[in-house]
Formats: sequence, structure tokens, C-alpha cells
Amino acid sequence: MQVAMTKPVLRVAAISGSIRKASWHRGLIRAAAEICEESIPELLIDDVDIADLPMLNTDLVTDGFPPAVEAFRTKVLQADCFLFASPEYNYSITGPLKNALDWASIGVNCWADKPAAIVSAGGNFGGGRSNYPLRQIGVFLDIHFINKPELFVFAFEEPSKFFDGDGNLIDLETKARLKKVILSLQAFTLRLRKKD
Amino acid sequence: MQVAMTKPVLRVAAISGSIRKASWHRGLIRAAAEICEESIPELLIDDVDIADLPMLNTDLVTDGFPPAVEAFRTKVLQADCFLFASPEYNYSITGPLKNALDWASIGVNCWADKPAAIVSAGGNFGGGRSNYPLRQIGVFLDIHFINKPELFVFAFEEPSKFFDGDGNLIDLETKARLKKVILSLQAFTLRLRKKD
Amino acid sequence: MQVAMTKPVLRVAAISGSIRKASWHRGLIRAAAEICEESIPELLIDDVDIADLPMLNTDLVTDGFPPAVEAFRTKVLQADCFLFASPEYNYSITGPLKNALDWASIGVNCWADKPAAIVSAGGNFGGGRSNYPLRQIGVFLDIHFINKPELFVFAFEEPSKFFDGDGNLIDLETKARLKKVILSLQAFTLRLRKKD
Amino acid sequence: MQVAMTKPVLRVAAISGSIRKASWHRGLIRAAAEICEESIPELLIDDVDIADLPMLNTDLVTDGFPPAVEAFRTKVLQADCFLFASPEYNYSITGPLKNALDWASIGVNCWADKPAAIVSAGGNFGGGRSNYPLRQIGVFLDIHFINKPELFVFAFEEPSKFFDGDGNLIDLETKARLKKVILSLQAFTLRLRKKD
Repeated sequence: MQVAMTKPVLRVAAISGSIRKASWHRGLIRAAAEICEESIPELLIDDVDIADLPMLNTDLVTDGFPPAVEAFRTKVLQADCFLFASPEYNYSITGPLKNALDWASIGVNCWADKPAAIVSAGGNFGGGRSNYPLRQIGVFLDIHFINKPELFVFAFEEPSKFFDGDGNLIDLETKARLKKVILSLQAFTLRLRKKD
Repeated sequence: MQVAMTKPVLRVAAISGSIRKASWHRGLIRAAAEICEESIPELLIDDVDIADLPMLNTDLVTDGFPPAVEAFRTKVLQADCFLFASPEYNYSITGPLKNALDWASIGVNCWADKPAAIVSAGGNFGGGRSNYPLRQIGVFLDIHFINKPELFVFAFEEPSKFFDGDGNLIDLETKARLKKVILSLQAFTLRLRKKD
Repeated sequence: MQVAMTKPVLRVAAISGSIRKASWHRGLIRAAAEICEESIPELLIDDVDIADLPMLNTDLVTDGFPPAVEAFRTKVLQADCFLFASPEYNYSITGPLKNALDWASIGVNCWADKPAAIVSAGGNFGGGRSNYPLRQIGVFLDIHFINKPELFVFAFEEPSKFFDGDGNLIDLETKARLKKVILSLQAFTLRLRKKD
Repeated sequence: MQVAMTKPVLRVAAISGSIRKASWHRGLIRAAAEICEESIPELLIDDVDIADLPMLNTDLVTDGFPPAVEAFRTKVLQADCFLFASPEYNYSITGPLKNALDWASIGVNCWADKPAAIVSAGGNFGGGRSNYPLRQIGVFLDIHFINKPELFVFAFEEPSKFFDGDGNLIDLETKARLKKVILSLQAFTLRLRKKD
């Protein structure tokens, strides 16, 4: 009898630190979803919106979390790993992203012991200064970030050769680099899985 | 003829990274305001609330900023220096604080070229891990942070000997240390003033 | 037939960032070695000295590395994982530790794809401010740091209840916490191993 | 009577984090010295070598510091401000630079309360990842870094259009940017001077 060796299907919660509509970072996540649909069927990208979360205020936590928070936490809990598309705002991550990270850490830490990757776009360092603060946050959240490859899209010029006006990633080389990040995340997630 | 040498009056925009009601960090700001009222008349503490700011989304900026943002930016612009009471959430600053920092940086950077101090309370490192990410943000915002003294209130235990149940600072030694931070901020602000 | 399930033996290269003789951090490594000898036979601690490395200067690399560098690199290469005992000097790691990290990264990166843990002792934050800069360095070196537990020995007072005058760790509770770090490092190393 | 308004002469201790001979960073310092000689006579650049410092080991401090350390500390003490040319080694500053920073901080902190600027060259982020760790170190050393402008020379390609084979800066636009950094350092130093 022959056994087909297949990789298990992994759920990737993908989160954009920018919540504006035509954001390059939302575009990076859409591109990641397309890449997986086309060529990595074992990865399901869940494009998780953080725009509707209230500002973190534990006064709001009385009989459980607000509904938008509860829904967000469930998506984080169900994920096997995370893909952060993190813009650099003032040399760090965005407020909405920090807010989302914090909401899912209260009480039961929904991020715990799961792998993650970060991708960024922007001028100057390609969004890079947002990555290391995010990694420091991940120490306490117990996120295992892949080290390599990193993806910084140096996309300062407008109009961009990397993104169209709706924030869609249009550069083939960057798509190929993004795919490598996703494959590295997949490999690290499988490697970290407890075998039972 | 005798000239009375008086220090000019400085406006300090004081911002708590926590927006919950009984927050220790709001308590630190109230304590700072009391200290100034009692013994440093040349400093006016403006307790600036950031709870009503919307999540940063530049799609919201059409004909100017939303009213809450506009009001916040005006307070930042009018200040001579800043006092951040910054809790440590997951090894960094809070989402609401990052959100506020970003809103006042868009277009005209309202923080530019002004001094600031940070005070923190918390378990473990007394909120300390929030301070260095905030300082990195300040490089781009062009904030001049005082280096010393730093104030970390190691206030993990509940009930706290440092704060009462409403978040009021009740420890005299910590009040004295807080006053030293404020005096250092005042001195640095005066020192950096352009003389004309 | 019965098969005894045994864990594979792992080599831990343990590196103290302080090179002075009575350093607490050398003491932490000696304590780690004793703990493994006594109760974790599957871990072999190799106490790697970095005092004899020359200052990094690639002008010194002509026909291969200087002998002390070559010997150090071999120890790093042979290790399965790393234990850093990292003091905090001026809010970061020490110069000798940075120097050692860099020497073993040139050409073939000897640190690549291996797990590590950090332990620290000191006043104030217990050496903690050295940990996050070290983790950032590890991103490029491709080191996989465990997230938890962290060990900060808050050992400011002299004489210390934690260490004797020769830097030996004498506090039983700290020894127990150190053991937990080592066990976490062991578990993470086994988990990351490629299965064959 | 006419009074010529002249700016006071300031001594700038300039330190390259790389100690190899043809280093771009030593080239940046030579370029800074030339710029000052040619057009900013009120700034005297002192090119301070850190290659001869021993590895920091407080066991070496018995009857005072080793001679090379003593000489280095004197140069730091005599400076009015600092110019760091800081390469990025493994996402941080170099070991020799950290070593030098630490030696001049023991006992009397020779860096205290003085302004500084950082310039970097390199691939990827132009050496940028070394800057923010250095700024964190500066908090404890009580260094006042200028925020703007930052100078990152994106000089990855070999042969470089920015530097010749001896590490001399040959790009005119970069020289102009370097001059702006120096002028900003001068202005900040004068602004921070206590008025007498």
C-alpha cells in the first residue's frame, strides 16, 4: 500500500498594521493569499481585519471582551502561525497593530508559542525600523519569529513600481521574495510542531 | 534698579499611555500636576486625554483632521515640553499612546524639537521596557528626551504601597523622585530654548 | 525487544559576556554546568572563554583566522545550542561579547540556525537591558532564542545574597530558576531538530 | 567699540567603530575633518583611535587605568561633543566601539552631558541598525544625540561610488550631507551649553 506524504494544512492569520484602504500592507497580504491559493495549497491565509477593535482599555472588559475583540481573539487562537505586514510609523509599528497585539494577549495569551513572519514596505529602510520593536514585543507574547528571509520593499517613490494605486503588489520579483518568506514560515511552523 | 530673575512659565503636555480610569499612569500625571501646583509654579501641567482619538487611518484625513485629532494636535503644538507616563504592555508602549504619537506627527510634526521625560510604573522592570522603544520613536519625531533621572516605579504587588485603588500615587519617596524628573525636564527645556 | 527512549546528548556552548575572574556571569555558567552534571546528563556545558580573542579587525584575516579565533569558531560550530550569560554594560551587551559574536559570524556563520537562551544578573533590571539588543543581533546571526523563561537576577546589593565573593551562585531559588531556563533551552533545541 | 561675534571653538572627538585600515567609517571621519578644516574653523575634529584599547576587564583596573585607556578617557573628557562613525555589524554596533564606550564610562563617566551625532555606511540600511542600539547606550552614558539629520550611506556595491579603495569618501553629495550633520551637531552643542 502506498501512502501519499502530504503536508498538513496550516492556517495563517495575516494582519496588516495599516488599516487604510489602499495600504501597501493590505496589498502585501492580498498578494500572500493569492500566492498560497495558486501554489501553496497547504497554507490558508486568513486576512484578519483589526480596524474595528476598540482602543485597548481594560475598563471595557467586564463580562468578557467586546464582541469585536472576542472575534479577533478567536481568529488568532485558531491560527497556526502569523504573517504581519507591518508599516513603519515613526520608527516603530502602528498604533492599531499594537492595540491588536495587546487585545489578544490579555488573560489567555492567544499568540503563545506560535511562529510568525514580518514583511514591510516603505521608504528609507523599507519599513524595517518597525520590525525589531515588533520582535521585542514577540518575546513576551511568546511568538517565534523566523529570522530569514526578511522582506523590506523599498517603495518610496510615487508612483511606485511595486504597488498600484489600490495598493496591489504588482512587482514580480517582490512576489517571488514574498513567496520565500511564506515558505520559510511554513517550514518553521512544521519544524516547531510538537510531534505526537 | 533691581531686576527680579524669574523663570519663564512652561506648558507641559502630560500624556498617559493607559486610558483606563484607575490607571497608575494617570495617577502619576495627577501627582505631577499637584507637585507643580504646590512647588513649581513655572510649570503648568496640561493633562491631555488620548482616549477619544480615533484609530489612525489617513483615509479619515480629508478636509483636515477629525475634530478630536485637531484638538489633540493643538495641545501638543502649544506645549513647551512633554511628560509621558508610559505603561509597559507586552514589552513596549501601549497602542493608544502610539496612536496619539502618530496622529500628531502627520503633516506638521507637532512634537518637533521639544524636550520630554518618561515615567513608568509596573511589575518586573517597573514599566521600563516601554521607555526605549518610545525613545526610538522620538528620534523621528525629533523629541529631545532627558536622560536622567529615569523613574521606574516597581509596583507589582497588589495592593500596592505606591498607589491606592483609584490609581493615586500615595508614596512620598516616589513623589520626591517624580519631582526630580519634572525639575530635570524643566532644566533641559530651559537649556534648549533658543535665546533671542 | 525493548527500546530505551533516551534523549540525545546536546552540546551547549556557554559564553559569559564578562571576562573578569570573579564575574557573576561566569558564576552563572559554572552553576549551569553543575546543574547539568548533577541532573541533566543529556546536556554537556562547554564553558567557552572569549577573553583571548583579538579585537575584531578583518585586516587580521589573511590566511585564515588568528588561532584564538579559529579555536573559538570551532567551539561555536560544534555546539547544538548556546547559553549566554550576559551582563548589562551601559544598557547593552559587553564589548567582548559583541566581539565574540562578530568573529564567529564572518564567512561561515557559526551561529546559524541554532537555539539559545540568555541569563543575566545585575542591579536595577537584573541585567535585562542587555537581553533585547542581543536578541536583535540574533536575528541576523539566525539564532533562535527561547522566549520563556527569562532569568534576571536582581543582584545589586553588595554583599550579595545571590553570589559569593568569587562569583559563585549560592542562592538555591535562583539555581532552580536557572535550571528551568536550561530545560527550556533543551526542549526548544530538540523541538527544532530536523527529524531524519 | 566693535565686538566681533564669533562662535566658540568646539572640540569634536570623532570615533570610528571599525578599526580596520581602509574602513569606510575611518574615511567618513577623515572627510569630516577635512570639511571642518576647509569651512567650519570653529570645529576641531580629533580622530580618536580605539584600536589599542584592551578588552574591558575591570580586573585590569588596579592603580588606575591601563595607559591606553587613560589616554582615551582624557580625549573623551576634553571633547565638547562626539561624532560616531558607526558600522553595522550583525544589526548592532561593533565590539571595539562598545568596548571603548564602556572604558570611558567607568568611575567618572567621561561622556556625560555632551552632544553627539552618528553617521553610518553600509549595505541594506546603510549601517542604520547600528544607530538605535547606540542611542540606547547613550541614555545611560548621558549623551545627547542630535535627532536630525541622520546620515546613512547606502554603499553596498563594490566598487563603491561613495568610497575609494582606501576608504576615502569621494562622493560630493554625501560630503554635503555629512557637512549638514556636523553643522547640526555644532548647533546643538552650542544650544546646550550652559550660559555663563
